[in-house]
Amino acid sequence: MTIQLGAILEETIEAIQPVSADLLAKCQAHLDTLTKPIGSLGRLEAIAAQMMAIYGGHVALPLKKNVYVFAADHGITDEGVSAYPRSVTSQMVLNFLGGGAGINVLSRAHDVELSVVDVGVDAILEGAPGLMLRSVRRGTRNMLYEAAMTEDELQRALAVGLELADAAQKLGCNLIAAGEMGIGNTAAASAITAVLTQQPVAVVTGKGTGLSSSAVKQKASVIQAVLERHFSDAVSKPDPLEVLRRAGGFELAAITGLVLGAASRRIPIVLDGFITTAAAAVAYAVEPRVKDYFFAGHISEEPGHRFLLEYIGLEPFLSLGMRLGEGTGAVLAMPLMESALRLYTEMATFASAGVSTANT
Amino acid sequence: MTIQLGAILEETIEAIQPVSADLLAKCQAHLDTLTKPIGSLGRLEAIAAQMMAIYGGHVALPLKKNVYVFAADHGITDEGVSAYPRSVTSQMVLNFLGGGAGINVLSRAHDVELSVVDVGVDAILEGAPGLMLRSVRRGTRNMLYEAAMTEDELQRALAVGLELADAAQKLGCNLIAAGEMGIGNTAAASAITAVLTQQPVAVVTGKGTGLSSSAVKQKASVIQAVLERHFSDAVSKPDPLEVLRRAGGFELAAITGLVLGAASRRIPIVLDGFITTAAAAVAYAVEPRVKDYFFAGHISEEPGHRFLLEYIGLEPFLSLGMRLGEGTGAVLAMPLMESALRLYTEMATFASAGVSTANT
Repeated sequence: MTIQLGAILEETIEAIQPVSADLLAKCQAHLDTLTKPIGSLGRLEAIAAQMMAIYGGHVALPLKKNVYVFAADHGITDEGVSAYPRSVTSQMVLNFLGGGAGINVLSRAHDVELSVVDVGVDAILEGAPGLMLRSVRRGTRNMLYEAAMTEDELQRALAVGLELADAAQKLGCNLIAAGEMGIGNTAAASAITAVLTQQPVAVVTGKGTGLSSSAVKQKASVIQAVLERHFSDAVSKPDPLEVLRRAGGFELAAITGLVLGAASRRIPIVLDGFITTAAAAVAYAVEPRVKDYFFAGHISEEPGHRFLLEYIGLEPFLSLGMRLGEGTGAVLAMPLMESALRLYTEMATFASAGVSTANT
Repeated sequence: MTIQLGAILEETIEAIQPVSADLLAKCQAHLDTLTKPIGSLGRLEAIAAQMMAIYGGHVALPLKKNVYVFAADHGITDEGVSAYPRSVTSQMVLNFLGGGAGINVLSRAHDVELSVVDVGVDAILEGAPGLMLRSVRRGTRNMLYEAAMTEDELQRALAVGLELADAAQKLGCNLIAAGEMGIGNTAAASAITAVLTQQPVAVVTGKGTGLSSSAVKQKASVIQAVLERHFSDAVSKPDPLEVLRRAGGFELAAITGLVLGAASRRIPIVLDGFITTAAAAVAYAVEPRVKDYFFAGHISEEPGHRFLLEYIGLEPFLSLGMRLGEGTGAVLAMPLMESALRLYTEMATFASAGVSTANT
């Protein structure tokens, strides 16, 4: 089965252009004129060159940064795959709106605008001040028995992300991150990871918010059953959007839409952890050119994350053992990225500073 | 031979107190009340707890941050151990004063006060606006033929660091970093590393600012000759300050003094790269309690750095392939550390936010 792309999604995917190799080479050459030994800023140089090439060679600093936190519930929580009750999703949405969660603290600290989006929380959140109401349904269906989403639900969740990418461009955002909150969503991400990367379920299933090792085994057996239900007769390369529909979540689909929309608008995207990267991996499977716009903020403790990063071909900036989600690892990497751009734009050159170059 | 400690240095070392284990446990317990799965902020939690314990449980944010860049020349450059001419040390000092170097950009970006200190540059820099003049001598002696410093020169360089730690406390600084500039100083750091960590010279000698692989071999053979000259009859545990005197540099000695002084005043110190960590390793060898105040900003591309970090027992925050020095890797880590403190102080608790805790 192949998902029919909506017209907007189809146009979006077609509009994704690779970053100019010429411009990238010019940006790299500029770095070699700066007062430092060649290459001595390490990966900051590659970050700066890639971002500057995305921006077409010029950008105003500070960047205008946004993080979108998508919240949704998951039918699969009926199978006991999380250490926390389902109600925590809506409770944490209220915590985001109240400013007390990890992502609030980090986005304030690093001047990142935070948008909290209900794409499918199992609670009535209408009237909550500051919340974007884009709920597709009060939680996905239980993927152990049926597809997590209908085709229509998938399209609506993708459209939320596309809408926000469009809004980001209109607001002048030039760096965005996605985050998520959804009790049960590591189970969805593990299922997607197993299908896309062809790794065994046991290898890509972790403790999520804090399962015991026996509960992780139980979670893996649920995910295995999900795969058998939905993908046992799959061809070796299943349609990535169909994988998302059957085993994803509304927040994952919104992120897939967001990153496709952002890449088509030449807005770089910092990926967060396991769930965000699973959604981004679906986008990559749909259109590999999105990768030019992806930056991996960190590597999560969730064991599946590194397989997704390898699948896309990304190297994470930070390795701090974090596993919180919400976009926290992505926002924490933003000062590094902005630092790289400041070094690129503000450092003196050997010529301007009168510094001798290396002996040859 | 054992270096006689000056009275101030002796008092400083005696004043270094370990961080209270009780307070550390209390700070860790506070982290577990915050609205996040237990431990999900990874190493940020350990950073926050350690810093909060150093601060005695309370700190005002933003931190008051300073980076001290010590510049000096090295007699060993006569042996052709660097890709750049010796004159680059003074040229880069002028670049620091002009605001165009990497450390200028990063310290501006992250609100870190920058102090540039001449502790032994081979140039007349008197009158350069903004420069702290603390020159011990115009470059160390050539350690291939004699000790890099006399005992008096060592004491004077250490005293520069002690003086600045005292000034930092008087200014209310609560996070400091050290950086350095000195053509030839990776050779000194490699010699110190080989002696302290007992690793072979070839393993701890790298390309510095950009030597070819044949030039790295030549550099290693010079360092080997230095070790044979100064440490062939050394006992298995040579006096660390004597190692510093024979094979160090004025900027290294100033950093050793700075970190001892800062630790005695309960000011946390972010280490930068290979040279800074070599100087910190000398301080650690003198008094292991300093380690409670050390944070490793990053791991450098210089191969000796990881042996020094292992020797002290530190895990670096960033691994970005940087090898610039100047304090750049340390300052780049400061936003992470400050983020950890903000999470500690600003996040809501489960109780205050009405969020359910994990199923047990």
